[in-house]
Amino acid sequence: MSDVANKIILIVLDGASDRPIGGKTPLAVADMPNLDALAYGGINGIMDTVGPGIRPGSDTSHLAILGYDPYKYYTGRGPFEAAGVGIDVKGGDIAFRVNFATVENGIVTDRRAGRISDTDELAKAINEKVKVPGVEIIFKRSTGHRGALILRGKGLSPDIADTDPKKEGNPMKECHATDDTPGAKRTAEIVNSISKQVIDLLDNMPTNLERKKQGLPPGNAILIRGAGEVPHIPPFDERYGLKGAVIAAAGLIIGIGKMCGLEYVPVGSMEIETSGSSAMAKMKKALETLKTHDFVLVNIKGADEAGHDGDFRKKTEFLEQADAAFKDVLKLKDVLVIVTADHSTPVSIKDHSADPVPILMNGPGVRMDDVAHYNELIAYKGGLLRIKGMDVMLIALDLINKTKKFGA
Amino acid sequence: MSDVANKIILIVLDGASDRPIGGKTPLAVADMPNLDALAYGGINGIMDTVGPGIRPGSDTSHLAILGYDPYKYYTGRGPFEAAGVGIDVKGGDIAFRVNFATVENGIVTDRRAGRISDTDELAKAINEKVKVPGVEIIFKRSTGHRGALILRGKGLSPDIADTDPKKEGNPMKECHATDDTPGAKRTAEIVNSISKQVIDLLDNMPTNLERKKQGLPPGNAILIRGAGEVPHIPPFDERYGLKGAVIAAAGLIIGIGKMCGLEYVPVGSMEIETSGSSAMAKMKKALETLKTHDFVLVNIKGADEAGHDGDFRKKTEFLEQADAAFKDVLKLKDVLVIVTADHSTPVSIKDHSADPVPILMNGPGVRMDDVAHYNELIAYKGGLLRIKGMDVMLIALDLINKTKKFGA
Repeated sequence: MSDVANKIILIVLDGASDRPIGGKTPLAVADMPNLDALAYGGINGIMDTVGPGIRPGSDTSHLAILGYDPYKYYTGRGPFEAAGVGIDVKGGDIAFRVNFATVENGIVTDRRAGRISDTDELAKAINEKVKVPGVEIIFKRSTGHRGALILRGKGLSPDIADTDPKKEGNPMKECHATDDTPGAKRTAEIVNSISKQVIDLLDNMPTNLERKKQGLPPGNAILIRGAGEVPHIPPFDERYGLKGAVIAAAGLIIGIGKMCGLEYVPVGSMEIETSGSSAMAKMKKALETLKTHDFVLVNIKGADEAGHDGDFRKKTEFLEQADAAFKDVLKLKDVLVIVTADHSTPVSIKDHSADPVPILMNGPGVRMDDVAHYNELIAYKGGLLRIKGMDVMLIALDLINKTKKFGA
Repeated sequence: MSDVANKIILIVLDGASDRPIGGKTPLAVADMPNLDALAYGGINGIMDTVGPGIRPGSDTSHLAILGYDPYKYYTGRGPFEAAGVGIDVKGGDIAFRVNFATVENGIVTDRRAGRISDTDELAKAINEKVKVPGVEIIFKRSTGHRGALILRGKGLSPDIADTDPKKEGNPMKECHATDDTPGAKRTAEIVNSISKQVIDLLDNMPTNLERKKQGLPPGNAILIRGAGEVPHIPPFDERYGLKGAVIAAAGLIIGIGKMCGLEYVPVGSMEIETSGSSAMAKMKKALETLKTHDFVLVNIKGADEAGHDGDFRKKTEFLEQADAAFKDVLKLKDVLVIVTADHSTPVSIKDHSADPVPILMNGPGVRMDDVAHYNELIAYKGGLLRIKGMDVMLIALDLINKTKKFGA
């Protein structure tokens, strides 16, 4: 092993961190010999991914861990939802979250169109047939009744209001500008034109005729909200001089990785995301990818899902399965290994919390400390003490000797 | 000993901090009974002199440790190089780094004039004979082919480009304004006038005639770069109400100390900077100076030089020798003793790194912790935890009861 690593693997155990129940957490009770070995041979600490007491989403936390200030680059749900469903968003795009809904005689009778899920045909029609001069319209369905909408063109603005009336029995809202600029007014007009065209287009499509026959509410309208301008994010390789890749199954993480300029490297058999075998497949692909890239971000999602389910046992079991995927990581040479979580997802609250997450760094030149287990209850005893998400890339770059000196 | 110290000695073991090799660092293996006693009787921690993962120069780190935000006051290499060679720079001066070079028929044939070192006569001539109306020109040689140039006067600007063509075989660059202001245009004209005068002046000076005779490239031109405006730094005594002094051998540290308003107190026998006896001489002078001053900054340089040499053993031996100089520090009463480093200079990389440095504070009223050795591998276990360079003076001022209350 040389004195200095030259590559970085950053493994995010999504939502793995927790709050104790009876003094124990899934990470603390899980048997994880490989992660413990990494902790033992490395330096440990706790991390506020965004800041102390700031409860992060996976989007804001991943931005921060990649060194992109979420207060600067997180411009709302719309852009990140659009990136998450696989639209190749571009800086300057105006992006929205969308619901398929049911409108009868101008009144929103179901804001989720009976939680419609067969939206392929409807989405395709919107994407192909809805037109407004001077603007490119990109629509993509997401899970269930959800979707994302992109407006691409000059002179647009995100300063417009939602069309979702929030309460059923009310008419769909006219979109209006929330700002006095010509761009905002024009964008509101475009949204209103789209809303109108969609109703005319969808009501009698085969999918909806079939739904009506079955007594189900048709998905004959879209409600838009969460307008945001896709941020202009400085590409990862220009910012850090590293050729980077992202390996993940969650659309949101893939989307954020791509927005930051990481190359998305797909892995097969992602359908079994919550089992340990998906972690194994991802890590195998990550180690391959390290041969051609300087930096690989790996997101392993299962613990987060078990946390959202409030299932302590499932979370613990997933972590034990995921640990097996770290066996080959232990053999890496000349690679700085970073293991952390993007946020806590305590089983006791079934949602993200701001409790700091454990982080370990292991590789040549790292100052080893006394911490011998990877978990959020003892990580604070390590040599990193308490850092922030925005510190990770700076510290990592320094450990691989890629930082510019500030001064002489 | 009273309950509160009334003076501060801040001892910077330049570059003493390191990365482990085989789990060990010079500070961790050196036998340092006096520094260990200070750690044992004090409070310890680690410090990011500028910020986590920010790899500092000695200039930016000393500014930060003295409580001057380097992001505000560090205005480029030129001003600090000029201060470092002993020019008494003033806020508003425009400062440059300079190379002596060889120019033949307008073409730069050697950017370092064969690494000329006998530049006394040339520098004196530039300083005395080069004139531009309305501006004061100060030139001083530095080590080897290097020097520093100051323009002092009204209506000048640092927004100008370098004249260094970077590649030999190219003509010297005309200096041009990088900004549209009259000051930038005027400063570029001044630089071009100086460049021209220097060539006319130096080519046939005795030093250069002798070099030509010996077949050596003459130092008959200067290339300027790194333009910066000397910052207006609020004087130390006004900022803190403390009469301060600096004891150091390195020009850069003396220059920064003076820029911050510290009185430079010279010590004899500085030629043996890398041996322990120079540390002893500095510390003796520092303890004397504490009788007449409230604050003394002592910079001890040897460990940094051994780090740059990549010499683990030399670094360790120097630290052991330097430790002897701390014997009398242990006897101080009513003085807050602070020992730290300005940055790590790991022997494995022979340059500065951003790895945090150990810091100890020892004196009346300090909360003692369990740390009993002064080194970067265990300092994080102490009561200071992880602080920043900009915190040091604030904490120190409070420990000597010199801070203003914020609120009632």
